[in-house]
Amino acid sequence: MFSNHTHHLVFLLIISIFSLTTIVHSQINVWPKPRTFYWPKPQASFLSPTFKIISPIHTHLTAAVTRYTQLILTEHYNPIMTPAVSISSTPLQTLTLTITDLNSPLQHGVNESYTLTIPTIGSSANLRAETVWGAMRGLETFSQLVLSNPSRVATGLYISDSPIFEHRGLTLDTSRNYYGVEHILRTIEAMSFNKLNVFHWHVVDSHSFPLVLPSEPDLAGKGSYGPSMQYSLADVKRVVEFGFEHGVRVMPEIDSPGHTGSWAEAYPEIVACANKFWLPPGTEWNDRLASEPGTGQLNPLNPKTYQVLKNVIHDVTTLFPEGFYHAGADEIVPGCWKADPTIQAFLTNGGTLSHLLEIFVNSTLPYITSLNRTVVYWEDIMLNADVKVDPSMLPPENTILQTWNDGPNNTKRIVSAGYRAIVSSSDFYYLDCGHGDFVGNNSAYDTLGPVPNNGGSWCGPFKTWQTIYNYDITYGLTEAEAKLVIGGEVALWSEQADSTVLDARIWPRTSAMAETLWSGNRDESGKKRYAEATDRLNEWRYRMVSRGIGAEPLQPLWCVTRPGMCNLVQ
Amino acid sequence: MFSNHTHHLVFLLIISIFSLTTIVHSQINVWPKPRTFYWPKPQASFLSPTFKIISPIHTHLTAAVTRYTQLILTEHYNPIMTPAVSISSTPLQTLTLTITDLNSPLQHGVNESYTLTIPTIGSSANLRAETVWGAMRGLETFSQLVLSNPSRVATGLYISDSPIFEHRGLTLDTSRNYYGVEHILRTIEAMSFNKLNVFHWHVVDSHSFPLVLPSEPDLAGKGSYGPSMQYSLADVKRVVEFGFEHGVRVMPEIDSPGHTGSWAEAYPEIVACANKFWLPPGTEWNDRLASEPGTGQLNPLNPKTYQVLKNVIHDVTTLFPEGFYHAGADEIVPGCWKADPTIQAFLTNGGTLSHLLEIFVNSTLPYITSLNRTVVYWEDIMLNADVKVDPSMLPPENTILQTWNDGPNNTKRIVSAGYRAIVSSSDFYYLDCGHGDFVGNNSAYDTLGPVPNNGGSWCGPFKTWQTIYNYDITYGLTEAEAKLVIGGEVALWSEQADSTVLDARIWPRTSAMAETLWSGNRDESGKKRYAEATDRLNEWRYRMVSRGIGAEPLQPLWCVTRPGMCNLVQ
Repeated sequence: MFSNHTHHLVFLLIISIFSLTTIVHSQINVWPKPRTFYWPKPQASFLSPTFKIISPIHTHLTAAVTRYTQLILTEHYNPIMTPAVSISSTPLQTLTLTITDLNSPLQHGVNESYTLTIPTIGSSANLRAETVWGAMRGLETFSQLVLSNPSRVATGLYISDSPIFEHRGLTLDTSRNYYGVEHILRTIEAMSFNKLNVFHWHVVDSHSFPLVLPSEPDLAGKGSYGPSMQYSLADVKRVVEFGFEHGVRVMPEIDSPGHTGSWAEAYPEIVACANKFWLPPGTEWNDRLASEPGTGQLNPLNPKTYQVLKNVIHDVTTLFPEGFYHAGADEIVPGCWKADPTIQAFLTNGGTLSHLLEIFVNSTLPYITSLNRTVVYWEDIMLNADVKVDPSMLPPENTILQTWNDGPNNTKRIVSAGYRAIVSSSDFYYLDCGHGDFVGNNSAYDTLGPVPNNGGSWCGPFKTWQTIYNYDITYGLTEAEAKLVIGGEVALWSEQADSTVLDARIWPRTSAMAETLWSGNRDESGKKRYAEATDRLNEWRYRMVSRGIGAEPLQPLWCVTRPGMCNLVQ
Repeated sequence: MFSNHTHHLVFLLIISIFSLTTIVHSQINVWPKPRTFYWPKPQASFLSPTFKIISPIHTHLTAAVTRYTQLILTEHYNPIMTPAVSISSTPLQTLTLTITDLNSPLQHGVNESYTLTIPTIGSSANLRAETVWGAMRGLETFSQLVLSNPSRVATGLYISDSPIFEHRGLTLDTSRNYYGVEHILRTIEAMSFNKLNVFHWHVVDSHSFPLVLPSEPDLAGKGSYGPSMQYSLADVKRVVEFGFEHGVRVMPEIDSPGHTGSWAEAYPEIVACANKFWLPPGTEWNDRLASEPGTGQLNPLNPKTYQVLKNVIHDVTTLFPEGFYHAGADEIVPGCWKADPTIQAFLTNGGTLSHLLEIFVNSTLPYITSLNRTVVYWEDIMLNADVKVDPSMLPPENTILQTWNDGPNNTKRIVSAGYRAIVSSSDFYYLDCGHGDFVGNNSAYDTLGPVPNNGGSWCGPFKTWQTIYNYDITYGLTEAEAKLVIGGEVALWSEQADSTVLDARIWPRTSAMAETLWSGNRDESGKKRYAEATDRLNEWRYRMVSRGIGAEPLQPLWCVTRPGMCNLVQ
């Protein structure tokens, strides 16, 4: 173990080597900002053209080392604002990786800390980490310290870094619209640039079932958008493996019992209310058949439901080694189940909708946990007003709830009930909001008055990077409660997104969350650092673009080159 | 001349050939929808692999014919919803173009009408137009009637088409962020797909001056973002020529006297308040130095101002043959002029800000009109509360006003004063709105409450395609007033846009305006056709994507393949 004590010694040593007088703000940008960044006398060395990373052999780390070696030697990123540093004549030859425990698997809670030392004198830098996953974070940091052509690297620098939150993710919906595997891989790559570690793959939903499963091939065969819009076994394997090589866990979500209209293409008998118009004429909003067009919910009373679903669960846990299994359970709409004759009979005989959900959970949750998985559900399973299960059925040791409604309040409800929470508040973290609504034939568009409901977007307005950066996911919690918040995820729901807009919808806004969850949104004095972050995020956006990520611009380039001039308050 | 009488005869002939019993709705999508589209018995023919377009020789038309021949033979677009039509065995061999007047230049008001006849029997189709520009519109229509692989083309079809509005444009700001020429060309190409005809190039502004001018090379030399972010003479020539080949006029805008901060890099002496912080501490909003960060307004009292500006005007009118010259004149901010010592003296001696603007207009407008140009100004020049000129100085025969504030009300003010209007209402036609604000250090992001002002976007919410489609640009006008509305333009201001988001910000929302201005937003019964347009615009979006335009998706693909199922009202 690379103990805290050792860390402390190294730190003192560095301080003395650098004859630190004052701690200056870094002039070089690493995003997310490291927890501890000492660069007392900004200097740099050229990077040797034969620069090498010396590393122990490890299936996934070695891939990362190869990749980063290539990136570091060829990126030649020219920053918008070039740091004013003197360059020493000794080129940096090597970065040496020291890893305490090569066997720690990539899983929730794995140690991601690292320290990075780049001396002013000498030709070798050192990256120390407890795990290969921490080493990957450090490699990313090192890559961001390399600039220009010929390449130079910041020296006289010591970084000690680790995340505040263990779960830092992105939800991507690949059902409403399909994304080719290359777009998923690029997204995971960009996540690793931002030290995010969970790709939450909302892979299926009512609109399409693109996931090819060996035991249930008809689900994708009939329920996908077509043969060219499926994820084959090889695709999934590639995504999972790519995740490992980037330190990004791939958490699958099989949303059920709601959001399962697409399952009816293969198995109409297990899906209630499939392929109906979602809001039949004369229907009140409370009696709608689905929360949006695309109806269908699994029927908890049909034994066939579990036969199919258990096959799905079995295949998914085989395909995805990840320890978390997301089981969905959001937005169960009463009207859909009520429209089914067998369910009607159940309700007439004294059953309730919540009983139905409890039957469903009792028939699936134990099976999932028996496969050695922690189950993640959307908050609805406990907090929905109409359809929810008794908390006694959700063992906190095996169950995590992901919150999306009511801002910090639902986070509070989850953790005060003793559950771990993943925060995806739609008020802050939903990337799709603010682009209007996708439903057609809305008579609001027959007059010239303002469109209601934030321009037609249920969760509008658009969540700016500042809104995302500003969010404190443990807001209003006690210290004990805050410990149950394992992290957060932004979400891109794909009603109005596909590969044409993927990068710009996600980046750089997701970078804002990435920094908040990694090192926070406050400076040393505890003040929110949204002003200073603007300049750094601008720079980072340009670097992401140069790495092939189509992140959207935040300001005129004029502002980027004149820090502070585009502020509201000087 | 191909008279209306002849048109009428052809029409009757077609009706009889097709033994029309009922006029069915087209099952094939042409966007914007033609004014008259008769396809009584949907049928198709294969397109001969040796298909040719027979056309008179004409510099620009010939380029278009070559391009469309290639597109038609190779596009092989597979529609999302395939029309159910029988295919005849006789392949279509030729499309013959007949053009009445080969010499009509591309200018405001040029005749863009065309008729297209594709018979069921026979191997040749006919496209008739008065001008080559109308022929280009017809070629686009023909290209959209060709589908699949092997290619087939709709037959038994007669189209008679012409635009409702003569001016159908897009404003692109290339100053706040730079766009490479290839992105401008792609945008013009996409405009031609949508039968738009004016690319309004807001080429310079306070943030950068990318336009290289022979007489004033320092303006770009010092005021651009750098040598790689300039438009050379060759670039401009290429854009203008590309516009001609696509039937798209390229209208330059040299915004002045406001929005000229970038001019100060070369000529600090002619720019008031340049390079200041826009909202100094303690400054009231009314006393700000600029409407947004990036200060600087030309000084109307300095003779040097006109020396430089006339060189600019001369060069621009030489580079751009277009008959409209956009002179800007928006957002003149009192605080900026007031901050200048010579102007202070002028004001102390009884001068007013409006006098200053009148001096400026008197010193420039006659020069521009002497160069045989119609001058377009933003509405501010007449409607601004603080700084405006007397209408007597703006001859209606040479002046057009472009409106952007206060929705239909300012259009009414312009046309009721006897001026022609171009409508760019920010409530409907501003494509950048709804993505937050670009200014930094806003303390609204220090609390978790809702962000004021529509999520921080001054003109939020986001203008959905429905909002754009819905807008009637002659709303509230008398018939006589409506005739002064020459058309409209959507606008993409580039504070938060560059090439990474260009296509998705513009398309397909601009297609919505394109149809409204070409053939309207109502069906034959006069009802707004936003529901039916959803399905057609979806299809058109996919076709644009297949043509290399990264238009954003409007709905899940599920909706696109199930027309009506994603409506709010069935």
